[in-house]
Amino acid sequence: MISPAEYERAAGLTAAMLQQAGIVITPEERGRLEVADFGLGDLRHTGLQLLTYLNTDRCCSKELVMEAGQTCPEHRHPWVDGNPGKEETFRCRWGSVYVYVPGEPTASPACRPPAGSEQHYTVWHEVKLMPGEQYTLAPNTKHWFQAGPGGCVVSEFSTRSTDENDIFTDPRIVRAPEVG
Amino acid sequence: MISPAEYERAAGLTAAMLQQAGIVITPEERGRLEVADFGLGDLRHTGLQLLTYLNTDRCCSKELVMEAGQTCPEHRHPWVDGNPGKEETFRCRWGSVYVYVPGEPTASPACRPPAGSEQHYTVWHEVKLMPGEQYTLAPNTKHWFQAGPGGCVVSEFSTRSTDENDIFTDPRIVRAPEVG
Repeated sequence: MISPAEYERAAGLTAAMLQQAGIVITPEERGRLEVADFGLGDLRHTGLQLLTYLNTDRCCSKELVMEAGQTCPEHRHPWVDGNPGKEETFRCRWGSVYVYVPGEPTASPACRPPAGSEQHYTVWHEVKLMPGEQYTLAPNTKHWFQAGPGGCVVSEFSTRSTDENDIFTDPRIVRAPEVG
Repeated sequence: MISPAEYERAAGLTAAMLQQAGIVITPEERGRLEVADFGLGDLRHTGLQLLTYLNTDRCCSKELVMEAGQTCPEHRHPWVDGNPGKEETFRCRWGSVYVYVPGEPTASPACRPPAGSEQHYTVWHEVKLMPGEQYTLAPNTKHWFQAGPGGCVVSEFSTRSTDENDIFTDPRIVRAPEVG
Protein backbone atom coordinates (compact mmCIF):
# COMPACT_ATOMS: atom_id res chain seq x y z
CA MET A 1 0.00 0.00 0.00
CA ILE A 2 1.31 3.42 -0.93
CA SER A 3 0.63 6.20 1.56
CA PRO A 4 -0.84 9.49 0.33
CA ALA A 5 2.43 11.25 1.22
CA GLU A 6 4.47 8.69 -0.70
CA TYR A 7 2.11 9.00 -3.66
CA GLU A 8 2.40 12.78 -3.65
CA ARG A 9 6.18 12.68 -3.53
CA ALA A 10 6.43 10.15 -6.36
CA ALA A 11 3.78 11.83 -8.52
CA GLY A 12 5.41 15.23 -8.05
CA LEU A 13 8.79 13.88 -9.06
CA THR A 14 7.20 12.14 -12.06
CA ALA A 15 5.57 15.37 -13.25
CA ALA A 16 8.89 17.18 -12.90
CA MET A 17 10.78 14.50 -14.84
CA LEU A 18 8.22 14.52 -17.65
CA GLN A 19 8.58 18.29 -17.84
CA GLN A 20 12.36 18.00 -17.89
CA ALA A 21 12.03 15.53 -20.77
CA GLY A 22 9.94 18.09 -22.68
CA ILE A 23 6.76 16.00 -22.43
CA VAL A 24 3.63 18.09 -21.91
CA ILE A 25 0.73 16.57 -19.99
CA THR A 26 -2.68 18.00 -19.19
CA PRO A 27 -3.90 18.86 -15.66
CA GLU A 28 -6.29 15.89 -15.93
CA GLU A 29 -3.34 13.60 -16.65
CA ARG A 30 -1.33 15.15 -13.81
CA GLY A 31 -4.18 14.18 -11.51
CA ARG A 32 -4.14 10.53 -12.53
CA LEU A 33 -0.45 9.66 -12.61
CA GLU A 34 -0.03 6.09 -11.42
CA VAL A 35 2.47 4.99 -8.81
CA ALA A 36 3.03 1.24 -8.57
CA ASP A 37 4.95 -0.58 -5.86
CA PHE A 38 3.84 -4.04 -7.02
CA GLY A 39 2.63 -4.78 -3.51
CA LEU A 40 6.12 -5.10 -2.05
CA GLY A 41 5.98 -1.86 -0.07
CA ASP A 42 9.42 -0.71 -1.18
CA LEU A 43 8.62 1.80 -3.93
CA ARG A 44 12.07 3.34 -3.94
CA HIS A 45 13.58 0.03 -5.07
CA THR A 46 10.74 -1.96 -6.66
CA GLY A 47 8.50 0.55 -8.32
CA LEU A 48 7.41 2.47 -11.33
CA GLN A 49 5.48 5.61 -12.13
CA LEU A 50 3.37 5.83 -15.26
CA LEU A 51 0.88 7.76 -17.32
CA THR A 52 -1.39 5.83 -19.68
CA TYR A 53 -2.32 7.94 -22.71
CA LEU A 54 -4.67 5.37 -24.18
CA ASN A 55 -5.50 1.70 -23.83
CA THR A 56 -8.09 0.50 -26.32
CA ASP A 57 -8.91 -3.06 -27.34
CA ARG A 58 -6.16 -2.80 -29.94
CA CYS A 59 -3.39 -0.53 -28.78
CA CYS A 60 -1.87 1.23 -25.82
CA SER A 61 0.60 4.02 -25.18
CA LYS A 62 2.19 5.08 -21.90
CA GLU A 63 5.02 7.09 -20.45
CA LEU A 64 7.04 5.26 -17.80
CA VAL A 65 9.06 7.26 -15.30
CA MET A 66 11.59 5.80 -12.89
CA GLU A 67 13.91 7.23 -10.32
CA ALA A 68 17.58 6.26 -10.32
CA GLY A 69 17.84 2.60 -9.43
CA GLN A 70 14.11 1.84 -9.36
CA THR A 71 13.30 -1.58 -10.79
CA CYS A 72 10.23 -2.93 -12.57
CA PRO A 73 10.31 -6.57 -11.49
CA GLU A 74 10.62 -9.52 -13.85
CA HIS A 75 7.40 -10.50 -15.59
CA ARG A 76 5.87 -11.63 -18.86
CA HIS A 77 2.65 -11.06 -20.79
CA PRO A 78 1.12 -14.48 -21.58
CA TRP A 79 -1.49 -15.52 -24.13
CA VAL A 80 -5.00 -14.69 -22.88
CA ASP A 81 -8.23 -16.20 -24.22
CA GLY A 82 -6.50 -17.48 -27.34
CA ASN A 83 -4.90 -14.14 -28.12
CA PRO A 84 -1.16 -13.54 -28.14
CA GLY A 85 0.10 -11.60 -25.15
CA LYS A 86 1.03 -7.97 -25.08
CA GLU A 87 3.77 -6.93 -27.50
CA GLU A 88 5.62 -3.91 -26.23
CA THR A 89 8.28 -1.48 -27.35
CA PHE A 90 10.28 0.67 -24.96
CA ARG A 91 11.73 3.90 -26.34
CA CYS A 92 14.01 5.85 -24.05
CA ARG A 93 13.20 9.57 -24.07
CA TRP A 94 15.38 10.87 -21.28
CA GLY A 95 18.06 9.43 -18.97
CA SER A 96 18.90 5.78 -19.44
CA VAL A 97 17.30 2.41 -18.78
CA TYR A 98 18.65 -1.14 -18.66
CA VAL A 99 16.28 -3.82 -19.94
CA TYR A 100 16.99 -7.49 -19.15
CA VAL A 101 15.69 -10.23 -21.43
CA PRO A 102 16.38 -13.92 -22.19
CA GLY A 103 19.58 -14.66 -24.04
CA GLU A 104 23.29 -14.81 -23.37
CA PRO A 105 23.78 -13.43 -19.85
CA THR A 106 25.76 -10.19 -19.89
CA ALA A 107 29.13 -10.75 -18.24
CA SER A 108 29.15 -7.70 -15.98
CA PRO A 109 25.58 -6.38 -15.86
CA ALA A 110 25.14 -2.75 -14.89
CA CYS A 111 22.23 -3.48 -12.52
CA ARG A 112 21.49 -5.59 -9.50
CA PRO A 113 18.01 -6.69 -8.47
CA PRO A 114 16.57 -5.10 -5.33
CA ALA A 115 18.25 -6.57 -2.24
CA GLY A 116 16.41 -9.63 -0.95
CA SER A 117 14.69 -10.29 -4.28
CA GLU A 118 17.66 -11.70 -6.19
CA GLN A 119 16.17 -15.16 -6.68
CA HIS A 120 13.22 -13.72 -8.58
CA TYR A 121 15.38 -12.31 -11.37
CA THR A 122 16.29 -14.99 -13.90
CA VAL A 123 17.01 -13.30 -17.26
CA TRP A 124 20.30 -11.50 -17.65
CA HIS A 125 20.83 -10.39 -21.23
CA GLU A 126 21.27 -6.64 -20.87
CA VAL A 127 20.01 -4.03 -23.35
CA LYS A 128 20.95 -0.46 -22.50
CA LEU A 129 18.73 2.25 -23.94
CA MET A 130 19.76 5.88 -24.20
CA PRO A 131 17.48 8.67 -25.50
CA GLY A 132 16.23 7.84 -28.99
CA GLU A 133 16.97 4.13 -28.62
CA GLN A 134 14.22 1.52 -28.45
CA TYR A 135 13.66 -2.20 -28.03
CA THR A 136 10.68 -4.39 -28.92
CA LEU A 137 9.69 -7.38 -26.79
CA ALA A 138 7.78 -10.29 -28.33
CA PRO A 139 4.75 -11.45 -26.31
CA ASN A 140 5.41 -13.74 -23.36
CA THR A 141 9.09 -12.73 -23.11
CA LYS A 142 10.36 -12.49 -19.54
CA HIS A 143 11.80 -9.05 -18.83
CA TRP A 144 12.71 -6.61 -16.11
CA PHE A 145 14.19 -3.17 -16.23
CA GLN A 146 15.94 -0.67 -14.05
CA ALA A 147 16.57 3.05 -14.46
CA GLY A 148 20.14 4.25 -14.90
CA PRO A 149 21.93 6.67 -12.56
CA GLY A 150 19.82 9.73 -13.45
CA GLY A 151 16.47 7.98 -13.70
CA CYS A 152 14.59 7.63 -16.96
CA VAL A 153 11.56 8.59 -18.97
CA VAL A 154 10.54 5.81 -21.37
CA SER A 155 7.68 5.72 -23.87
CA GLU A 156 5.89 2.41 -24.17
CA PHE A 157 4.03 1.54 -27.36
CA SER A 158 2.10 -1.72 -27.21
CA THR A 159 -0.97 -3.77 -27.86
CA ARG A 160 -3.72 -3.64 -25.23
CA SER A 161 -2.43 -3.60 -21.68
CA THR A 162 -4.11 -5.89 -19.14
CA ASP A 163 -2.03 -5.68 -15.98
CA GLU A 164 -4.13 -8.33 -14.25
CA ASN A 165 -2.84 -10.97 -16.68
CA ASP A 166 0.85 -10.25 -16.14
CA ILE A 167 2.82 -13.10 -14.65
CA PHE A 168 5.58 -12.06 -12.26
CA THR A 169 8.50 -14.33 -11.39
CA ASP A 170 8.28 -13.21 -7.76
CA PRO A 171 5.32 -15.08 -6.22
CA ARG A 172 4.85 -12.33 -3.66
CA ILE A 173 3.55 -10.15 -6.50
CA VAL A 174 0.11 -11.61 -6.91
CA ARG A 175 -1.98 -9.01 -8.72
CA ALA A 176 -2.10 -5.82 -10.70
CA PRO A 177 0.22 -3.14 -9.33
CA GLU A 178 -1.04 -1.18 -6.37
CA VAL A 179 -1.80 2.18 -7.84
CA GLY A 180 -2.17 5.48 -6.03
CA MET B 1 8.04 13.59 -57.00
CA ILE B 2 10.08 15.35 -54.37
CA SER B 3 13.45 16.70 -55.52
CA PRO B 4 16.55 15.91 -53.45
CA ALA B 5 16.83 19.61 -52.55
CA GLU B 6 13.21 19.76 -51.43
CA TYR B 7 13.70 16.57 -49.42
CA GLU B 8 16.79 17.96 -47.70
CA ARG B 9 15.07 21.20 -46.80
CA ALA B 10 11.99 19.44 -45.39
CA ALA B 11 14.00 16.78 -43.56
CA GLY B 12 16.29 19.38 -42.05
CA LEU B 13 13.36 21.40 -40.80
CA THR B 14 11.75 18.24 -39.44
CA ALA B 15 14.88 17.32 -37.49
CA ALA B 16 15.04 20.84 -36.07
CA MET B 17 11.38 20.81 -35.04
CA LEU B 18 11.74 17.42 -33.33
CA GLN B 19 14.73 18.78 -31.44
CA GLN B 20 12.79 21.88 -30.45
CA ALA B 21 10.02 19.61 -29.14
CA GLY B 22 12.60 17.78 -27.00
CA ILE B 23 12.30 14.56 -29.00
CA VAL B 24 15.61 12.76 -29.43
CA ILE B 25 16.15 10.65 -32.54
CA THR B 26 19.11 8.54 -33.59
CA PRO B 27 21.37 9.28 -36.57
CA GLU B 28 19.86 6.24 -38.28
CA GLU B 29 16.39 7.74 -37.83
CA ARG B 30 17.60 11.15 -39.03
CA GLY B 31 18.71 9.41 -42.22
CA ARG B 32 15.29 7.90 -42.91
CA LEU B 33 12.90 10.75 -42.18
CA GLU B 34 10.00 10.54 -44.61
CA VAL B 35 8.70 13.45 -46.64
CA ALA B 36 5.32 12.89 -48.29
CA ASP B 37 3.68 15.15 -50.86
CA PHE B 38 0.89 12.66 -51.69
CA GLY B 39 1.80 12.92 -55.33
CA LEU B 40 0.38 16.42 -55.73
CA GLY B 41 3.75 18.12 -56.10
CA ASP B 42 2.91 20.92 -53.67
CA LEU B 43 4.62 19.82 -50.46
CA ARG B 44 4.39 23.20 -48.81
CA HIS B 45 0.58 23.00 -48.83
CA THR B 46 -0.30 19.31 -49.12
CA GLY B 47 2.37 17.45 -47.26
CA LEU B 48 3.63 15.79 -44.15
CA GLN B 49 6.94 14.78 -42.67
CA LEU B 50 7.19 11.70 -40.49
CA LEU B 51 9.35 9.26 -38.59
CA THR B 52 8.06 5.74 -38.03
CA TYR B 53 9.42 4.28 -34.79
CA LEU B 54 7.86 0.88 -35.28
CA ASN B 55 5.21 -0.79 -37.41
CA THR B 56 4.64 -4.43 -36.51
CA ASP B 57 1.70 -6.65 -37.40
CA ARG B 58 -0.06 -5.36 -34.30
CA CYS B 59 0.97 -1.81 -33.52
CA CYS B 60 2.63 1.29 -34.88
CA SER B 61 4.09 4.51 -33.54
CA LYS B 62 5.20 7.60 -35.45
CA GLU B 63 6.05 11.24 -35.03
CA LEU B 64 4.34 13.55 -37.52
CA VAL B 65 5.85 16.95 -38.24
CA MET B 66 4.15 19.69 -40.22
CA GLU B 67 5.08 23.22 -41.16
CA ALA B 68 2.61 26.03 -40.54
CA GLY B 69 -0.38 25.52 -42.79
CA GLN B 70 0.67 22.15 -44.23
CA THR B 71 -2.29 19.82 -44.72
CA CYS B 72 -2.57 16.04 -44.62
CA PRO B 73 -5.39 15.47 -47.11
CA GLU B 74 -8.70 13.81 -46.26
CA HIS B 75 -8.59 10.03 -46.11
CA ARG B 76 -9.79 6.97 -44.21
CA HIS B 77 -8.41 3.57 -43.23
CA PRO B 78 -10.85 0.91 -44.45
CA TRP B 79 -11.27 -2.72 -43.45
CA VAL B 80 -8.67 -4.92 -45.14
CA ASP B 81 -8.89 -8.69 -45.54
CA GLY B 82 -11.64 -8.96 -42.96
CA ASN B 83 -9.74 -6.94 -40.38
CA PRO B 84 -10.89 -3.57 -39.06
CA GLY B 85 -8.95 -0.63 -40.45
CA LYS B 86 -6.26 1.30 -38.67
CA GLU B 87 -7.28 2.89 -35.38
CA GLU B 88 -5.19 5.93 -34.64
CA THR B 89 -4.63 8.44 -31.88
CA PHE B 90 -3.02 11.82 -32.45
CA ARG B 91 -1.31 13.43 -29.48
CA CYS B 92 -0.01 16.95 -29.95
CA ARG B 93 3.49 17.39 -28.55
CA TRP B 94 4.41 20.84 -29.77
CA GLY B 95 2.67 23.66 -31.62
CA SER B 96 -0.95 23.07 -32.56
CA VAL B 97 -2.92 20.99 -35.02
CA TYR B 98 -6.50 21.10 -36.27
CA VAL B 99 -8.09 17.73 -36.99
CA TYR B 100 -11.30 17.55 -39.05
CA VAL B 101 -13.69 14.64 -38.66
CA PRO B 102 -17.35 13.77 -39.39
CA GLY B 103 -19.95 15.48 -37.23
CA GLU B 104 -21.51 18.89 -36.82
CA PRO B 105 -19.57 21.23 -39.12
CA THR B 106 -17.71 23.87 -37.14
CA ALA B 107 -19.22 27.28 -37.84
CA SER B 108 -16.00 29.19 -38.44
CA PRO B 109 -13.27 26.61 -38.99
CA ALA B 110 -9.71 27.75 -38.38
CA CYS B 111 -8.36 26.10 -41.53
CA ARG B 112 -8.97 26.13 -45.25
CA PRO B 113 -8.07 23.29 -47.58
CA PRO B 114 -5.19 23.89 -49.97
CA ALA B 115 -6.31 26.19 -52.79
CA GLY B 116 -7.73 24.29 -55.73
CA SER B 117 -8.47 21.19 -53.65
CA GLU B 118 -11.52 22.43 -51.78
CA GLN B 119 -13.94 19.91 -53.28
CA HIS B 120 -11.94 17.02 -51.85
CA TYR B 121 -12.48 18.08 -48.25
CA THR B 122 -15.88 16.95 -46.99
CA VAL B 123 -15.71 16.62 -43.16
CA TRP B 124 -15.76 19.81 -41.13
CA HIS B 125 -16.08 19.04 -37.44
CA GLU B 126 -12.97 20.71 -36.00
CA VAL B 127 -10.89 19.37 -33.12
CA LYS B 128 -8.03 21.61 -32.05
CA LEU B 129 -5.14 19.92 -30.26
CA MET B 130 -2.59 21.79 -28.19
CA PRO B 131 0.44 20.13 -26.51
CA GLY B 132 -0.71 17.31 -24.22
CA GLU B 133 -4.09 16.98 -25.94
CA GLN B 134 -5.04 13.93 -27.98
CA TYR B 135 -7.83 12.51 -30.11
CA THR B 136 -8.62 8.92 -31.12
CA LEU B 137 -10.11 8.08 -34.51
CA ALA B 138 -12.16 4.93 -34.98
CA PRO B 139 -11.25 2.86 -38.07
CA ASN B 140 -12.65 4.02 -41.39
CA THR B 141 -13.36 7.55 -40.14
CA LYS B 142 -12.71 10.24 -42.73
CA HIS B 143 -10.23 12.81 -41.45
CA TRP B 144 -7.80 15.49 -42.49
CA PHE B 145 -5.57 17.74 -40.48
CA GLN B 146 -3.61 20.94 -40.80
CA ALA B 147 -0.85 22.42 -38.67
CA GLY B 148 -1.53 25.62 -36.75
CA PRO B 149 0.38 28.89 -37.22
CA GLY B 150 3.66 27.64 -35.73
CA GLY B 151 3.62 24.15 -37.22
CA CYS B 152 3.25 21.04 -35.11
CA VAL B 153 4.84 17.88 -33.81
CA VAL B 154 2.25 15.15 -33.24
CA SER B 155 2.74 11.61 -31.93
CA GLU B 156 0.63 8.97 -33.61
CA PHE B 157 -0.19 5.72 -31.77
CA SER B 158 -2.04 3.17 -33.85
CA THR B 159 -2.59 -0.33 -35.04
CA ARG B 160 -0.53 -1.49 -38.01
CA SER B 161 -0.04 1.14 -40.68
CA THR B 162 -0.52 0.12 -44.32
CA ASP B 163 -0.39 3.31 -46.37
CA GLU B 164 -1.22 1.44 -49.56
CA ASN B 165 -4.73 0.71 -48.25
CA ASP B 166 -5.60 4.31 -47.36
CA ILE B 167 -8.49 5.76 -49.33
CA PHE B 168 -8.17 9.45 -50.14
CA THR B 169 -11.15 11.62 -51.04
CA ASP B 170 -9.08 13.33 -53.72
CA PRO B 171 -8.91 10.92 -56.68
CA ARG B 172 -5.64 12.47 -57.82
CA ILE B 173 -4.02 10.78 -54.81
CA VAL B 174 -3.84 7.25 -56.05
CA ARG B 175 -1.21 5.51 -53.98
CA ALA B 176 1.00 5.48 -50.94
CA PRO B 177 2.67 8.84 -50.31
CA GLU B 178 5.73 9.61 -52.36
CA VAL B 179 8.50 9.35 -49.86
CA GLY B 180 11.95 10.82 -50.08
